[in-house]
Amino acid sequence: MKVHTVLPGPDEYAWTFGGEEARVTIAPGDVVELFTEDCFAGRIQGLDDLPSRRITYPYINPQTGPFHVEGAEPGDTLAVHLIDVRPARNWAVSTTVELFGALTGTRYTASLQPPLPERVWRYDIDVVSGGVEFAALDSDHRVRLPLEPFHGTIGVAPAAFEVRNVLVPEAFGGNMDSPEVCPGATVYLGVNVPGALFSLGDGHCTMGEGEACGVAVEGAMDTVLTVEVLKGTFCEWPRIESDEAVMVAGSYRPLEDAFRIAHVEMVHWVSETTGLSVMDAYQLVSQAARSRIANVCDANYTVLAKVPKTLLPEVEWMGGTHARLRQVAAAYTSRGARA
Amino acid sequence: MKVHTVLPGPDEYAWTFGGEEARVTIAPGDVVELFTEDCFAGRIQGLDDLPSRRITYPYINPQTGPFHVEGAEPGDTLAVHLIDVRPARNWAVSTTVELFGALTGTRYTASLQPPLPERVWRYDIDVVSGGVEFAALDSDHRVRLPLEPFHGTIGVAPAAFEVRNVLVPEAFGGNMDSPEVCPGATVYLGVNVPGALFSLGDGHCTMGEGEACGVAVEGAMDTVLTVEVLKGTFCEWPRIESDEAVMVAGSYRPLEDAFRIAHVEMVHWVSETTGLSVMDAYQLVSQAARSRIANVCDANYTVLAKVPKTLLPEVEWMGGTHARLRQVAAAYTSRGARA
Amino acid sequence: MKVHTVLPGPDEYAWTFGGEEARVTIAPGDVVELFTEDCFAGRIQGLDDLPSRRITYPYINPQTGPFHVEGAEPGDTLAVHLIDVRPARNWAVSTTVELFGALTGTRYTASLQPPLPERVWRYDIDVVSGGVEFAALDSDHRVRLPLEPFHGTIGVAPAAFEVRNVLVPEAFGGNMDSPEVCPGATVYLGVNVPGALFSLGDGHCTMGEGEACGVAVEGAMDTVLTVEVLKGTFCEWPRIESDEAVMVAGSYRPLEDAFRIAHVEMVHWVSETTGLSVMDAYQLVSQAARSRIANVCDANYTVLAKVPKTLLPEVEWMGGTHARLRQVAAAYTSRGARA
Amino acid sequence: MKVHTVLPGPDEYAWTFGGEEARVTIAPGDVVELFTEDCFAGRIQGLDDLPSRRITYPYINPQTGPFHVEGAEPGDTLAVHLIDVRPARNWAVSTTVELFGALTGTRYTASLQPPLPERVWRYDIDVVSGGVEFAALDSDHRVRLPLEPFHGTIGVAPAAFEVRNVLVPEAFGGNMDSPEVCPGATVYLGVNVPGALFSLGDGHCTMGEGEACGVAVEGAMDTVLTVEVLKGTFCEWPRIESDEAVMVAGSYRPLEDAFRIAHVEMVHWVSETTGLSVMDAYQLVSQAARSRIANVCDANYTVLAKVPKTLLPEVEWMGGTHARLRQVAAAYTSRGARA
Repeated sequence: MKVHTVLPGPDEYAWTFGGEEARVTIAPGDVVELFTEDCFAGRIQGLDDLPSRRITYPYINPQTGPFHVEGAEPGDTLAVHLIDVRPARNWAVSTTVELFGALTGTRYTASLQPPLPERVWRYDIDVVSGGVEFAALDSDHRVRLPLEPFHGTIGVAPAAFEVRNVLVPEAFGGNMDSPEVCPGATVYLGVNVPGALFSLGDGHCTMGEGEACGVAVEGAMDTVLTVEVLKGTFCEWPRIESDEAVMVAGSYRPLEDAFRIAHVEMVHWVSETTGLSVMDAYQLVSQAARSRIANVCDANYTVLAKVPKTLLPEVEWMGGTHARLRQVAAAYTSRGARA
Repeated sequence: MKVHTVLPGPDEYAWTFGGEEARVTIAPGDVVELFTEDCFAGRIQGLDDLPSRRITYPYINPQTGPFHVEGAEPGDTLAVHLIDVRPARNWAVSTTVELFGALTGTRYTASLQPPLPERVWRYDIDVVSGGVEFAALDSDHRVRLPLEPFHGTIGVAPAAFEVRNVLVPEAFGGNMDSPEVCPGATVYLGVNVPGALFSLGDGHCTMGEGEACGVAVEGAMDTVLTVEVLKGTFCEWPRIESDEAVMVAGSYRPLEDAFRIAHVEMVHWVSETTGLSVMDAYQLVSQAARSRIANVCDANYTVLAKVPKTLLPEVEWMGGTHARLRQVAAAYTSRGARA
Repeated sequence: MKVHTVLPGPDEYAWTFGGEEARVTIAPGDVVELFTEDCFAGRIQGLDDLPSRRITYPYINPQTGPFHVEGAEPGDTLAVHLIDVRPARNWAVSTTVELFGALTGTRYTASLQPPLPERVWRYDIDVVSGGVEFAALDSDHRVRLPLEPFHGTIGVAPAAFEVRNVLVPEAFGGNMDSPEVCPGATVYLGVNVPGALFSLGDGHCTMGEGEACGVAVEGAMDTVLTVEVLKGTFCEWPRIESDEAVMVAGSYRPLEDAFRIAHVEMVHWVSETTGLSVMDAYQLVSQAARSRIANVCDANYTVLAKVPKTLLPEVEWMGGTHARLRQVAAAYTSRGARA
Repeated sequence: MKVHTVLPGPDEYAWTFGGEEARVTIAPGDVVELFTEDCFAGRIQGLDDLPSRRITYPYINPQTGPFHVEGAEPGDTLAVHLIDVRPARNWAVSTTVELFGALTGTRYTASLQPPLPERVWRYDIDVVSGGVEFAALDSDHRVRLPLEPFHGTIGVAPAAFEVRNVLVPEAFGGNMDSPEVCPGATVYLGVNVPGALFSLGDGHCTMGEGEACGVAVEGAMDTVLTVEVLKGTFCEWPRIESDEAVMVAGSYRPLEDAFRIAHVEMVHWVSETTGLSVMDAYQLVSQAARSRIANVCDANYTVLAKVPKTLLPEVEWMGGTHARLRQVAAAYTSRGARA
């Protein structure tokens, strides 16, 4: 097992999907231990570090990568399995940002109203016991939320020669902000360019469904992953597989279009994999879905169609890729490389 | 404890919210045992009972009620606590319906494409062991889904002299299609007319998030409920409280507007009840929400903002109404009135 | 020719479509001279008459009617031809209203931002020369806009037993806010209840496309109209015919759904009337449409598909109704009843 | 006056905004005579040339350019004035395309329904008399539409390091599909990269509002333009100026967000240029707008806020750029360079 360690320096992050040279080349089956900065590039640490003072657009949401995966060609699918995602620091932050978020006018849902105030919340992170502590700014209330780390952003170079900003989710993945991109999950992304050129970042210690204020509990992460390439199979939209469920991420606007994308793709995936007719798959998905809103604040909104495997015919999804990557993860973990 | 039994005859259902005379008058604290027909008025039982043959619009989705609640005046809030919701038959049905559903053109998302075929699926319901059995139409696959009965439709007479069709969800409640309207839940609805005039129906044995095909596993229900009136408090949008969580239902289009309604109302509710500032409540709800898509197929779409009580300051919600109604439920159940 | 004069007293307006008793009964071919109050019921006259002080919801947008049209039965279509629409006063007003309008958060596009200020603008109306004079509030700028009077609201009782607030546009017509509902236009509305029960109001002296601030230049109107009933023909959505164009109004959300409704209905209407195939009609409408955004601020948004008759096959639309009603108008006008 | 002639060879078109090397460098005040291919790269000429047979995505909508404009730096605004846009051939085509268009399910408004058929319509173009002749496919109907040539696509390299496909409209311009981009118009685009790198194409002989079927009457164009750079002024969204009106293009989804963007930007532009307060500008724009739907079919939808100059205070817009470019156009035309 080849294990890569990737610790980017301050100037070594990617700010786009596509359009960047590969920083690291890896092979299917390799394991990568990597560090991701938080979405603010670590520049917001205290309550006075307002985003408008510390951040210069578009230098927000740095990504670790891109990784060139050997053998990945356009028309294939890249499978990225997250072995571990763990906060790298004992603190994290959230903020409000002017003209950003679901409950305010934004650049795209434009309004003449005055903006909401910018504020910064700092959270204490307790990795050992699994806590994310919220402290109110205007009173002394504190409460502990569960630590549920995941990557808000993961994607490959887009199709059609496009280069997209790291704040955008679309068919190439990107800033989907889904809590399902967590340890134990396999993310499937259709490959558009040689080597796939995937990158990831935007670690979240926890987040509510929809990311209402536009910013999760943002933290740097120590992440371990492995990859596989499915030759000759192309996922139009990102798929995610966990031990328990199969999922499709749809990212567009309005939010019902994100829902439609995810669920139409799920119906076809179920039909093709299980042999159910399209209408039977439509019916079964309609009754069995445990879908989730991911974000209602980004450049595109994201909904995840999610169906528990136990409610679907017992089949091997994506050619058994997830199980194989689970074995790589188990082999990695058992060698004690990481406490 | 006064217990009413309401078993409507075939011509005794309501087809609107508002605009109907009260059929039954009840008092706060009374218990009502009632029957609700399925959304097809029981007319679809087999695979050949296509909706276009058996149903004449607008005679779809019959509601049991309306109930006049003594003492409920405009400006108050009605609390309806569901003590039990139980399938009344050992079968239920789902269908596709022409120009209805989330993954097809509809009357409102109009398209020139040919419609999808109409089909009927019949499910076996096992109340004892809690199963809903799906049988594919085009192959011999069968799978058991969990029985999770709830009422897709519950509401009061609307404001502004309106009368709305029973397929519509809006501020008065109505056809929200949320699985959270289940046994153990308290639904809060702002009162717009004397007596509130609430009704309910549209029992679902189970349903996927979003009700993608437009029709859940539709079944008649035996339901038990009790009510309370909160004087001088008005909920702009429906709220739901369970032992574990507080929720707000937003119903409009596009789907992001349903999300916005639900979450803005939740932020204000949390702020007003807990004393957190609006910005702190915004932040906390943003990280703690476990919100759910209810429907993406009805005349308005519905999203439920949902926050676990344990992640919020420890307070009494809605003046402790839910706990009091839980006690009524316990008293009712302990007297053995219902096996 | 029978001529009715309808001058409602202060308590004789309708606040809903549906749910009101007919105030006047008329026959096809009759002419009605009527008065409509402005949307503020005449209560806003000066700059200090802020809506929040003068208006109590839902007493906004009073409608003159409803009119019972003899012989109109469900399944028919009512044709209302506007012979004249003329400002009844030499002033009109516009305002901003809290949480209303296209460029602000609203009740349905909910936001946590502070609302915009309420303001009132008073316009001088010059009927003789056709001017609407804007006077800035915060500087001394004045400019003259063209007088283009029309009715923002016109509709019939809705289907499915519904009663809708007068601020709502939908399939029954209602608050569409389209400048095409002007002198010389024939509005076709599908009949849902015996007598059709149509009413109208919400006179606008002029309005920009989309009614961005939510309020046009609102004025009382002296209006003259005549009606006809098309037996056995039902318009699913409102149609409008002028000497130059045929139009369909779609009203829903999001705005693209309003566009889809209007244009799908237009394609089918063109195909059915001209004998062009659906695909040819789709193509021709796609190149010939001169469609207009009506409102982006009401409970539903409205788009009008509009196609010049000269770009379509030369046919008789709606059985020649418009031409016949033009003759009634000419006969009325020539008798000098109205200078 | 320096006049450039740009006639791209088959392999010399741009398929993205951004990400391409400049093909031609021009200076402010220069005139460019150029050729643009139609959106199908000339590959669809007859009724059997179905897009699925002749076009390989993403080789659709070729752009002439990009042009490097001397002196244009990020933060400036590029003004492109269209002196002439004239069909280069005596024929043009339109088609339906699978999963594309406003009245069908698409890749983003996903549906399980069967797609509409692919068809090709060929139009005769008569430049001399100004006609575009439609011939029905399924009957022998023919009708002449007015020739109104414009460029559906014009834009600069995007901000934030992005590269966008030529089918996308957004803040950088692109595939807005607005008939206002026609001879006599000046298009203002905020500059994001040195030299601006603008390109244009997608000539339309005519098009209905909204481009319902997704494809206009597509034709190659002979176009003449000139440019100017406004130093230190940045347009967030594209602006267009004609002799009669000022306009802003908003491009996003849902369609109401495109409307909001365009009109909020217009209100601010009017306020800043005329000295009217923001609230007065909001009011005046609300009554004076003659806005137009551009497209409801592209990757983003586009609405143009449009206000006649005569309804606004008499001021010089954009520092008088349009008038200066009109003079360049007049000088060019008077020298008889182009009949």
